[in-house]
Amino acid sequence: MIDDSPLRGLWCALLTPVGAGGGVDHGRLAAHAGRLLARGVDGVMPFGTMGEGPSFPVAERMAGLEALLAAGIPPGRLLAATGCAAFADALALTRHALASGVARCLVLPPFFWKGLSDEEVFRYYAGLIEAVGDTRLRVYLYHIPAVSGVPISPEVLARLARAYPGQIAGVKDSGGDYAHTTRFLQSAPGLAILVGHEPDLPKLMRGGGAGSIGGVANLLPEMVAALLKPGVTAADETRIKGFLDIVFQYPFLPACKALLADHTGDAGWLALRPPLLPLSVSERESLFAALEASGLNPAPLF
Amino acid sequence: MIDDSPLRGLWCALLTPVGAGGGVDHGRLAAHAGRLLARGVDGVMPFGTMGEGPSFPVAERMAGLEALLAAGIPPGRLLAATGCAAFADALALTRHALASGVARCLVLPPFFWKGLSDEEVFRYYAGLIEAVGDTRLRVYLYHIPAVSGVPISPEVLARLARAYPGQIAGVKDSGGDYAHTTRFLQSAPGLAILVGHEPDLPKLMRGGGAGSIGGVANLLPEMVAALLKPGVTAADETRIKGFLDIVFQYPFLPACKALLADHTGDAGWLALRPPLLPLSVSERESLFAALEASGLNPAPLF
Repeated sequence: MIDDSPLRGLWCALLTPVGAGGGVDHGRLAAHAGRLLARGVDGVMPFGTMGEGPSFPVAERMAGLEALLAAGIPPGRLLAATGCAAFADALALTRHALASGVARCLVLPPFFWKGLSDEEVFRYYAGLIEAVGDTRLRVYLYHIPAVSGVPISPEVLARLARAYPGQIAGVKDSGGDYAHTTRFLQSAPGLAILVGHEPDLPKLMRGGGAGSIGGVANLLPEMVAALLKPGVTAADETRIKGFLDIVFQYPFLPACKALLADHTGDAGWLALRPPLLPLSVSERESLFAALEASGLNPAPLF
Repeated sequence: MIDDSPLRGLWCALLTPVGAGGGVDHGRLAAHAGRLLARGVDGVMPFGTMGEGPSFPVAERMAGLEALLAAGIPPGRLLAATGCAAFADALALTRHALASGVARCLVLPPFFWKGLSDEEVFRYYAGLIEAVGDTRLRVYLYHIPAVSGVPISPEVLARLARAYPGQIAGVKDSGGDYAHTTRFLQSAPGLAILVGHEPDLPKLMRGGGAGSIGGVANLLPEMVAALLKPGVTAADETRIKGFLDIVFQYPFLPACKALLADHTGDAGWLALRPPLLPLSVSERESLFAALEASGLNPAPLF
């Protein structure tokens, strides 16, 4: 049976290791995913924003998902990020995920266009669900307007949830605007609302949210897990904010790859796909020094 | 010999006809391109923004270019739009254009990411040129920040032109900000600067610009051609502004498709790829009525 249960808990938006030839390093990717599952994350998502998903062609994204499955990551612990600029590409990836046994797909809106109407966003997702034509599909909408340029309105979410009950399963809200998150929670109370911005997790969980899909879990899954628990403390909240205050002074994704490379001792994690560039040596040094000085250096956790 | 001469004059960013099954209607596309060349456009560009390029997968964009060539459109009258979210896809399309005999490629920056540094944009284009590794390539940078979210700075243009003289051939500036256009002209005086916003053409041509790559030429190539001539009149300028003032009250691309459908009598032009939607019947009626009332109805020209 395909696992189509609602997403819940701690999901990691995997960084993607880029090999020497520029391709996805499947071995490093699967080993990283396996380590994270062993450290308590509930599931992993390859090729999201943290995974530089839109920087990889469709065929590489399919091969990456297949490699994770072949390495033994259970399909129920996977969330497939299947959004693309072209509808036909998103459709191909979504069909491929389902055919691979992965029911849950996080789908970016079509991010080339700007100023889309709610009607256009609604029909895009409706068209995708109908074209896939498989009741096992579980679509999670992806609200990350600062990057995609296409917000998901609570009205679109509610309308889709009414039109495709069950198949519209939730939202990843990476808007970083908790007022918008609250509107998602109110407009679609039966759905799984997960946020990307980790400091919002305690109030999300108190408000009935489902959990986290984010990037910090690549480095500090225990730190993020603490934020999801009823017993979360003020110190837990201070700790994640302190960590992000420092890391956000650098390009976030390259900074996370630099930290992962440093703390695993595996420089293979430094590489990024174009157009993103690694931190410079001096940026890395100042980042590490700032974390060291703050006592937030994740090294001991690795 | 491949035609690698600088772009000059009136180039049309082709609308893409979507067939009943949702694919590109190659027959309509080639017939439209042929009609425009017969009406005096210097060349045509399939799969740009007007052509909903990023809404089509790589394979469909390749097939569309091949269909135009197979229908007898000379490669020297074609500009291939090869930008994609993923570098590897842009590389595949650029190589394909060259292999098809089309040297000139308009390349969007990688439009998923936002806030890219000049260094990242420079290295992206540099990486593309080096990966193609063919001195016949002629790259035109595509500045359309309101859609792509990634501006091309005059500094990046100048740096690329110094690093890849000849291969960096020009810019399509669809920023609609003539101060930025002026900086392009000043920073890269040897390159071909073409604009998308037709009302800017007279001053562009006086200032040493090369011409137009735009959407209005799908409908009114003669009206745009007049703007490129030394003898352009105030009436010519008033006419294009009047036309755009009306059309810009509607989603531009669907409005242009509605006008082309109306004036060719071919309703096949109404369809768009997801996520864009056609104008409603009432929008079409009010658009046509407004143009009729203004005396700017392009119908007599068809």
